[in-house]
Amino acid sequence: MSLKQQKHSIRTDLAIEAHQMLVGEVDREIPGVQVETEEKERLRISRVHISSPEAEQRMGKQQGKYITLEAPGLRQKNTELQDMVSRQFTKELLSMVELADNSSVLIVGLGNWNVTPDALGPRVVKDLLVTRHILALEPETLGEGFRAVSAISPGVLGITGVETGEIIQGLVEKVRPDLLIAVDALAARSLTRLHTTIQIADTGITPGSGVGNKRLKISHETIGIPVIAVGVPTVVDAVTIADDLTSHLLEAIMREAGPESPVYKVIQSIAEGDRRAVMSEVLEPYGGRLMVTPKEIDTLVEDTAKLLAGGLNAALHPAIQSADSGKYLH
Amino acid sequence: MSLKQQKHSIRTDLAIEAHQMLVGEVDREIPGVQVETEEKERLRISRVHISSPEAEQRMGKQQGKYITLEAPGLRQKNTELQDMVSRQFTKELLSMVELADNSSVLIVGLGNWNVTPDALGPRVVKDLLVTRHILALEPETLGEGFRAVSAISPGVLGITGVETGEIIQGLVEKVRPDLLIAVDALAARSLTRLHTTIQIADTGITPGSGVGNKRLKISHETIGIPVIAVGVPTVVDAVTIADDLTSHLLEAIMREAGPESPVYKVIQSIAEGDRRAVMSEVLEPYGGRLMVTPKEIDTLVEDTAKLLAGGLNAALHPAIQSADSGKYLH
Amino acid sequence: MSLKQQKHSIRTDLAIEAHQMLVGEVDREIPGVQVETEEKERLRISRVHISSPEAEQRMGKQQGKYITLEAPGLRQKNTELQDMVSRQFTKELLSMVELADNSSVLIVGLGNWNVTPDALGPRVVKDLLVTRHILALEPETLGEGFRAVSAISPGVLGITGVETGEIIQGLVEKVRPDLLIAVDALAARSLTRLHTTIQIADTGITPGSGVGNKRLKISHETIGIPVIAVGVPTVVDAVTIADDLTSHLLEAIMREAGPESPVYKVIQSIAEGDRRAVMSEVLEPYGGRLMVTPKEIDTLVEDTAKLLAGGLNAALHPAIQSADSGKYLH
Amino acid sequence: MSLKQQKHSIRTDLAIEAHQMLVGEVDREIPGVQVETEEKERLRISRVHISSPEAEQRMGKQQGKYITLEAPGLRQKNTELQDMVSRQFTKELLSMVELADNSSVLIVGLGNWNVTPDALGPRVVKDLLVTRHILALEPETLGEGFRAVSAISPGVLGITGVETGEIIQGLVEKVRPDLLIAVDALAARSLTRLHTTIQIADTGITPGSGVGNKRLKISHETIGIPVIAVGVPTVVDAVTIADDLTSHLLEAIMREAGPESPVYKVIQSIAEGDRRAVMSEVLEPYGGRLMVTPKEIDTLVEDTAKLLAGGLNAALHPAIQSADSGKYLH
Repeated sequence: MSLKQQKHSIRTDLAIEAHQMLVGEVDREIPGVQVETEEKERLRISRVHISSPEAEQRMGKQQGKYITLEAPGLRQKNTELQDMVSRQFTKELLSMVELADNSSVLIVGLGNWNVTPDALGPRVVKDLLVTRHILALEPETLGEGFRAVSAISPGVLGITGVETGEIIQGLVEKVRPDLLIAVDALAARSLTRLHTTIQIADTGITPGSGVGNKRLKISHETIGIPVIAVGVPTVVDAVTIADDLTSHLLEAIMREAGPESPVYKVIQSIAEGDRRAVMSEVLEPYGGRLMVTPKEIDTLVEDTAKLLAGGLNAALHPAIQSADSGKYLH
Repeated sequence: MSLKQQKHSIRTDLAIEAHQMLVGEVDREIPGVQVETEEKERLRISRVHISSPEAEQRMGKQQGKYITLEAPGLRQKNTELQDMVSRQFTKELLSMVELADNSSVLIVGLGNWNVTPDALGPRVVKDLLVTRHILALEPETLGEGFRAVSAISPGVLGITGVETGEIIQGLVEKVRPDLLIAVDALAARSLTRLHTTIQIADTGITPGSGVGNKRLKISHETIGIPVIAVGVPTVVDAVTIADDLTSHLLEAIMREAGPESPVYKVIQSIAEGDRRAVMSEVLEPYGGRLMVTPKEIDTLVEDTAKLLAGGLNAALHPAIQSADSGKYLH
Repeated sequence: MSLKQQKHSIRTDLAIEAHQMLVGEVDREIPGVQVETEEKERLRISRVHISSPEAEQRMGKQQGKYITLEAPGLRQKNTELQDMVSRQFTKELLSMVELADNSSVLIVGLGNWNVTPDALGPRVVKDLLVTRHILALEPETLGEGFRAVSAISPGVLGITGVETGEIIQGLVEKVRPDLLIAVDALAARSLTRLHTTIQIADTGITPGSGVGNKRLKISHETIGIPVIAVGVPTVVDAVTIADDLTSHLLEAIMREAGPESPVYKVIQSIAEGDRRAVMSEVLEPYGGRLMVTPKEIDTLVEDTAKLLAGGLNAALHPAIQSADSGKYLH
Repeated sequence: MSLKQQKHSIRTDLAIEAHQMLVGEVDREIPGVQVETEEKERLRISRVHISSPEAEQRMGKQQGKYITLEAPGLRQKNTELQDMVSRQFTKELLSMVELADNSSVLIVGLGNWNVTPDALGPRVVKDLLVTRHILALEPETLGEGFRAVSAISPGVLGITGVETGEIIQGLVEKVRPDLLIAVDALAARSLTRLHTTIQIADTGITPGSGVGNKRLKISHETIGIPVIAVGVPTVVDAVTIADDLTSHLLEAIMREAGPESPVYKVIQSIAEGDRRAVMSEVLEPYGGRLMVTPKEIDTLVEDTAKLLAGGLNAALHPAIQSADSGKYLH
């Protein structure tokens, strides 16, 4: 059906959204996709496992494991909930990787620090407890319970002139970490997910996703070590919202008119072409570069970055109890 | 017609847009509204004069003069065009006020510096050549050709807990300037206007407009001195875009179906209610706090602020030639 | 004695330092100055009361009460100590003012946000829980236990062209608060005090002190309501350090030589003139505008601002327990 | 002589200062060091060539060429002088390197963006015209006259946990540029040089110099391509100033007393030990981490960065006339 057919091209970086869109359509299980959901107070955890090439194809998401934490309450400032989600994030992250006591981890903050909704990765890096150099030079100042963590925000292609993937490759060859964690701002399909959903995936960062300009894939295959991708949606593309709005609207009209009515048929026949023409007429001047964000975007990015940084610090350094991970923020 | 009736509630801070929406509808002149247009290379200047209470009512804009500079080329980085627009802005601003050599001017940068698209006013203030204290204390260091300029960015209600209008009233009573110029980010109806249109008005700042929370009117009546409002659109409300999209779409369908078709009648009858339901379903989670901006918003606000500050510096200080007004930016 | 005579001109904004310098010299009590000291673990609290015009004259500090909290440990990042000092700061602040449940308080962040060590006041304001507008418009969203707090960072004379005192006067006439709290960065004489000492005074802000350009006094006399000044030293003037260094050095030489030696007499006779000539030769190019700060100044100002904002929030809003005052930071 | 002996340990990153200190002492030419000076209106250009291992040893500076531009007028805001110095900087830079039309250049902004005086390198990078990716992907959008420029601000060891030199090595292996230009904030010995002197050197960046923590040398030897270091002094170590002050002072006393006097001998005998004790007593609390900067450091770093970025853009892209290099900033 015309209104639905287009949906797969709608951009989302979240496996859980891709799954919901498919399931909503076919109304049954998708072979090669296992989904498991756990409800906690004010927090839902979903674990999506894409395990066949066919499922990868249909979902438009790489094979691998995706864990999603959803806490709609994060939209309101609530320190207690932030702490709770941060602790659960730590737990889920640790469930996805195997870390030895002396594992070395490199954290990469992807994105453009000059564009607020794309600045999440660099902002997280700012609040990390970086220890690699201390453990190498004067380990006694730290004591027990710290892993060697290094971190960088390489910028985006438009800032450096160099593919981010190349910078990371070069760095990994020098630093030789056991694990890479890439933090990035994501694009979602639904406004309700902005700053309320965290995705952890063991698939690497798929090129072309995200807000900025990243093109070379960063994954186990390309850099030779496991890659965990951590992301939070900070924008919805204006085109996505426009598509949503018009789909909903036309469906409502068709529903009301009934499948036998001429209205139904007219809309069904003309809708897609018109929708595209109209959307391009309205949104064209800025091309694909328009985004929809909440007005409090600056504060929301700041809060989300603190939550992720606190969770990462606790996950990587056993000495840090998640409860007081703020203590080590510099 | 249902699709049109709602349009007046669509938010725009630009008189020229309000006029275009009305003219588009009635297809003729509006009594009490004079419009004059001048085309220059890459720049169109419009002068709208609203001169009757009826016209004020119909336009949804206060009686007074509105000058609009439109330069679509500003969307691309172009220093030469910026300089040209800045010079024309200086000229138009001076056409609206009568300044004696010893006039004292207070410039107020409205808006919230923590919210990028609302930070235009504070950013302009940052680049102004402020001279009031130098003229009072050591005028010889400046030489001839400078007026007493003071400037403040008072913040917004949510930051200060005080109505911005009250802060300004208090300040005007102390500083006793001859003229107040208020600079603010505006909301437009059309995406093409973002960062490409400058409005200068002698009507003061109407309460409730703009991106932030401003409620007490700042005008000749409320503060006792002439008030010039300078603004540039930096956002379009997500609701405006949604309304635009759906109006265009449904109109296209109706046009195609023809006025005699049942489709036409069905859509005409159900459209408005459905549109509202659909929009609120999609946009509701963030209430009215969603905005659409170009991704380069940070850079665009910076560039627009420099253009306005340069133009204001040249307008207020005869010693500054617009050409090298950058020289006095600190 | 020549080396000592000059000391009174050394700039410090701290009453406790002024007192120590005097006491060090005369080695006895100063009439009209009561000093009381309390030692806590990792925190010393001093209460200086200057109660006669003569004492005011000798101390170079206005009559009134000065409370000083000294916690050298704050130089190292230590969340626990920060919390403890913040709670004690709340307590001492409340001991100095009488607040009714419905008292309204205006907090002013003095200083220049463009100059890191002078940005303390504006940074504190950024983290305050501002409630005046909420209590006026929708008090039910807050619940019990909140006072009407408003806040502003007016900037400095060089930015606004207006005396900060005038801006405050205008604002106080509009807002009509019961109490004004002014937060400012201070200059100390001793490097050890940077970011480790908090001074609370009920004397207002003396013109000419601080890092920036403040000239009109903000006090009970000038604005008609009680004024509490809260400050933390963030810089030492380069001249102060130079003076310290050379005094110490020459004293050491004289001590070694002995009072009967010709060296002693020569140094005693020539020291002051030479010192001044040498200092002006070395420091002159930047006039009085040189400052000495730790390299981590950016982080230290941030941490100090959080400590003060947390303490102020807890002091003014009974609903906030100091322990979780961070919860209300936006 | 004791007062002089210590001088070589005084830290300066400027070859011209190292030379002046030596020449001041020995009062004659230094073998293996050629110095050539050119005076222009408001600008002095010095070219120091260190050409023997002995000279390297004595100067405490690596063998190679050092060009210094000195323009004391830069301390005052002066757009015209800035432009003139920027153009000369372009010229001198080009005199030091051989660039083919298709040479590829990597610019590295060294230093810590969180510490204002150390943020010069990253600030310069922000204003560079980066073209490598455009020339690779869509060269037609640029036209003729642009070289492939890439740029990165890698951060400092304390932020990344990785030696900056290692990050650069990894990057150079991937990007394979023909030339590396490293921009860094320097430490000077003299306050008059802050933000008024530019040094260009073909020797690479010596480890341990600068404000931040850089330890691995970045030079032709370590990374395999020519390295040009560009730097501007932004701080003087507090210890340097202290040393200066006390040296000058004691010398003045000795001069006045005369070489036959007991004062002279006493000071000569005790000076150094005492000076060190006194300095450590006064400066110790913050260890070596104290710096002296002008209060306008934020603005000065901004202006200096613009000057260097404009000069680099003009040097690397023939299409850019230095006169309007601002046109291509971001």
